[in-house]
Amino acid sequence: MASNDAKKTNVGAKSGGKKKEVKKETGLGLFYKKGENFGEWYSEVVVSGEMIEYYDISGCYILRPWTMSIWETMQAFFDGEIKKMKIKNCYFPLFVSPGVLQREKDHIEGFAPEVAWVTKSGESELEVPIAIRPTSETVMYPYYSKWIRGHRDLPLKLNQWCNVVRWEFSHPTPFIRSREFLWQEGHTAFATKAEADAEVLEILELYRRIYEEYLAIPVVKGKKSELEKFAGGLYTTSVEAFIPNTGRGIQGATSHCLGQNFAKMFEINFENEKGEKSMVWQNSWAYSTRTIGVMVMVHGDDKGLVLPPKVASIQVIVIPVPYKDVDTQKIIEFCKTTVATLSEAGLCVEADFRDNYSPGWKYSHWEMKGVPLRIEIGPKDLANNQVRAVRRDNSAKVDVPVNDELAERVNGMLADIQQSLFDAAKQKRDACIKVVKTWDEFVEALNQKKMILAPWCNEEEVEKDVKARTKGEMGAAKTLCSPFDQPELHPGTLCFASGKPAKKWTYWGRSY
Amino acid sequence: MASNDAKKTNVGAKSGGKKKEVKKETGLGLFYKKGENFGEWYSEVVVSGEMIEYYDISGCYILRPWTMSIWETMQAFFDGEIKKMKIKNCYFPLFVSPGVLQREKDHIEGFAPEVAWVTKSGESELEVPIAIRPTSETVMYPYYSKWIRGHRDLPLKLNQWCNVVRWEFSHPTPFIRSREFLWQEGHTAFATKAEADAEVLEILELYRRIYEEYLAIPVVKGKKSELEKFAGGLYTTSVEAFIPNTGRGIQGATSHCLGQNFAKMFEINFENEKGEKSMVWQNSWAYSTRTIGVMVMVHGDDKGLVLPPKVASIQVIVIPVPYKDVDTQKIIEFCKTTVATLSEAGLCVEADFRDNYSPGWKYSHWEMKGVPLRIEIGPKDLANNQVRAVRRDNSAKVDVPVNDELAERVNGMLADIQQSLFDAAKQKRDACIKVVKTWDEFVEALNQKKMILAPWCNEEEVEKDVKARTKGEMGAAKTLCSPFDQPELHPGTLCFASGKPAKKWTYWGRSY
Repeated sequence: MASNDAKKTNVGAKSGGKKKEVKKETGLGLFYKKGENFGEWYSEVVVSGEMIEYYDISGCYILRPWTMSIWETMQAFFDGEIKKMKIKNCYFPLFVSPGVLQREKDHIEGFAPEVAWVTKSGESELEVPIAIRPTSETVMYPYYSKWIRGHRDLPLKLNQWCNVVRWEFSHPTPFIRSREFLWQEGHTAFATKAEADAEVLEILELYRRIYEEYLAIPVVKGKKSELEKFAGGLYTTSVEAFIPNTGRGIQGATSHCLGQNFAKMFEINFENEKGEKSMVWQNSWAYSTRTIGVMVMVHGDDKGLVLPPKVASIQVIVIPVPYKDVDTQKIIEFCKTTVATLSEAGLCVEADFRDNYSPGWKYSHWEMKGVPLRIEIGPKDLANNQVRAVRRDNSAKVDVPVNDELAERVNGMLADIQQSLFDAAKQKRDACIKVVKTWDEFVEALNQKKMILAPWCNEEEVEKDVKARTKGEMGAAKTLCSPFDQPELHPGTLCFASGKPAKKWTYWGRSY
Repeated sequence: MASNDAKKTNVGAKSGGKKKEVKKETGLGLFYKKGENFGEWYSEVVVSGEMIEYYDISGCYILRPWTMSIWETMQAFFDGEIKKMKIKNCYFPLFVSPGVLQREKDHIEGFAPEVAWVTKSGESELEVPIAIRPTSETVMYPYYSKWIRGHRDLPLKLNQWCNVVRWEFSHPTPFIRSREFLWQEGHTAFATKAEADAEVLEILELYRRIYEEYLAIPVVKGKKSELEKFAGGLYTTSVEAFIPNTGRGIQGATSHCLGQNFAKMFEINFENEKGEKSMVWQNSWAYSTRTIGVMVMVHGDDKGLVLPPKVASIQVIVIPVPYKDVDTQKIIEFCKTTVATLSEAGLCVEADFRDNYSPGWKYSHWEMKGVPLRIEIGPKDLANNQVRAVRRDNSAKVDVPVNDELAERVNGMLADIQQSLFDAAKQKRDACIKVVKTWDEFVEALNQKKMILAPWCNEEEVEKDVKARTKGEMGAAKTLCSPFDQPELHPGTLCFASGKPAKKWTYWGRSY
């Protein structure tokens, strides 16, 4: 394997002073294996794949260009879709005054322990400490109260792309649990509950599309339990993904109906068409850079990242494979022509012409970075007027003739890869789903790291009880969501945990 | 005037309870005049034009959608251009640890008094206080040191779009001087000074284009004095705008060559092609939401905002003008067809069909928001198959026949408006430029609120002395920049302030 070759040359400038040429330390194989030590593998792959650099403040991470281009692709999609829905972008301050932050009791109880406080500027103490937004409900809604007067001011639909801070103490993980992260947060107000309900689902569908169409990750759409819903909201819907290696569910994105609770606290009233005073119905919804962590966890392998073509900033990497006694310049030219042809067809293609790395090193490097398709061009390809295409996801190799159909063929391969990634992820996820009906089955399935679908009485006390009974080193089980797509619930079905009549099927499991 | 009409109906829902229909409070004329009370006018116009909402933390402002769409237009342009230059986006954390922040002495002296410190999370004191970035040199450069090993790692060219915090105590002003603002900050490292120098100017040219091509504001490109350059940098270039009403210069955006100063502090070394250890040359450059404030100050008038068409999210507003006894529905249809025609041609057009506002109210409202062109459609227009177009910038009215050339005509009018705004702004700015050669002329020009071009000996002590001698209620005079476009400096010309031989022409004035 090239990665072994490459390791030999792994000498950093600042350690091995005498080497004339400096070799990069990236792209040279992973020390940990995904199946053996998932946590270490994940930390290693996000760094070696050049997505993340660890930062000198715990829980904060540097998002490198390889990450940001994925974020920007999702952002372009989502921002375009919400603009079609007449949702407008705005920007509210990073800072919240304590009085406003604490206005909604349930809400602040949910966030208070994680709030970071600014108390000093320069050498001066501030008169009043100022909070950094953990989310912006309480930042925004005093102004919704001001801006909304009559029914013609509704709906009010705003979104912002920003950073938020949650000073979590449970062990931080890049993308998945970080103290600062990037997200969009939508905040909308409607005259009627029906409009709010409809938007909750419309946004949730966009989140499903981000996961399934862009990141090639299957998700379950559903409703959160009362215990797991957004603090201060009426109900929460989510898309839930699953990480087979750890047997943990992961909340992918949430779309909340806030009901009229915040409206009451912040006095967001309007005069309706009959001239009566009414209260608005509100939603809030968000997805964050966590999406990218889920993508790494689901698709990555022992060679590194695996990027779905739709979010890869480089979809195809062209690598010249020179041989001694062969005209290297001709190979380079052939590579350049190939890049030009594919670029003109709208594909994101680059060539790696660096002359201080071997082709094998380059293969490993771009595999580590997860580029979906590699094109190798050597003397034989030149002679046969073909290129060799190698898929990142399954290592399949195919010789593709260089003719008018090249771009179309490559494009087709990328579409295939995108679909294959989704199919493989779905197959693995589905293999983890276990339907259980009794407590014993539940415990067994939990030990087997399953995503458990069980009939439930839908009582909060029962969920608390399940949490208490499954508490342990691995973390307690909880509800992930009640899927909108409900299997038939036969009359007389009992709750797996309480033995009371079941009200719905619900996914349970450990989670991130 | 329509604005008088409109004022009569200005009854808010929450004050006048018995009104059946609620009238908006926006768009109903300004209380202050630009020429009489500029500061109050500015505060009023950014709020009434729905760009800004004041926030309950001093120095923080809410950027409303009308602002964000302008920001996004400039962002799309600039981001596209820097991507062509192979500059990549990244995202570094909001937080800086104190040790790193203080690594570069001159730099931190420049920013220390304005740094906001997080000292608590939830109820717990942090072990070490953590700073919020006022800019990201010290956040990023430790990692540049890590990533850069050999000459092949150069150039390293990163940019980020983010918020920064500078807890200023001098009086805050929306966009112009706020405690949190949005910006882009580029940070690049090169093997040679020549490459860094070239990029400084390439970026500065993009900043000029943002001001001149997008915001229709004339700027002077030049070099900052030693006293005014970026703290810790080698030299600073800037684009400088001027606000005739206040007679103050305003730094529009800056492109700094940092030299090797940060490289030394952060040990950003590389092995060059000869195998020798070298230090990188660095640049940093930024423009912020301040740009939007300059736009408001330069173009706004007593009716409200005036938006250049290239940044206006609504370029054309179509307003039906119904008359009694006339078929309103036909007018509405005619409006809709007009909107469709212009939209198809790529223009940003909306119609205002609200039936609870008079046409006069709507004129005022959209004038307040600065929409470049208004199209009025009444019964006479319907009969003559024409529309009436009214320019926001000069109130010129023209009847335009509705035929195949409509979109082209309207597009032409928008281009005209864009150019007229620039020309008018340039004429006003140029009228403020005063060339002086003696101290007496200088003082006189300063009192006349001029942008003063004077021969200068280029000595730091002399600039300090000028500052000291002009200190007063209005603020001291300082250098704005030495323009790249230097008038001829005749031999023997003396410095206006010191009487020593002049080295260059420099702009002086009070500034924001």
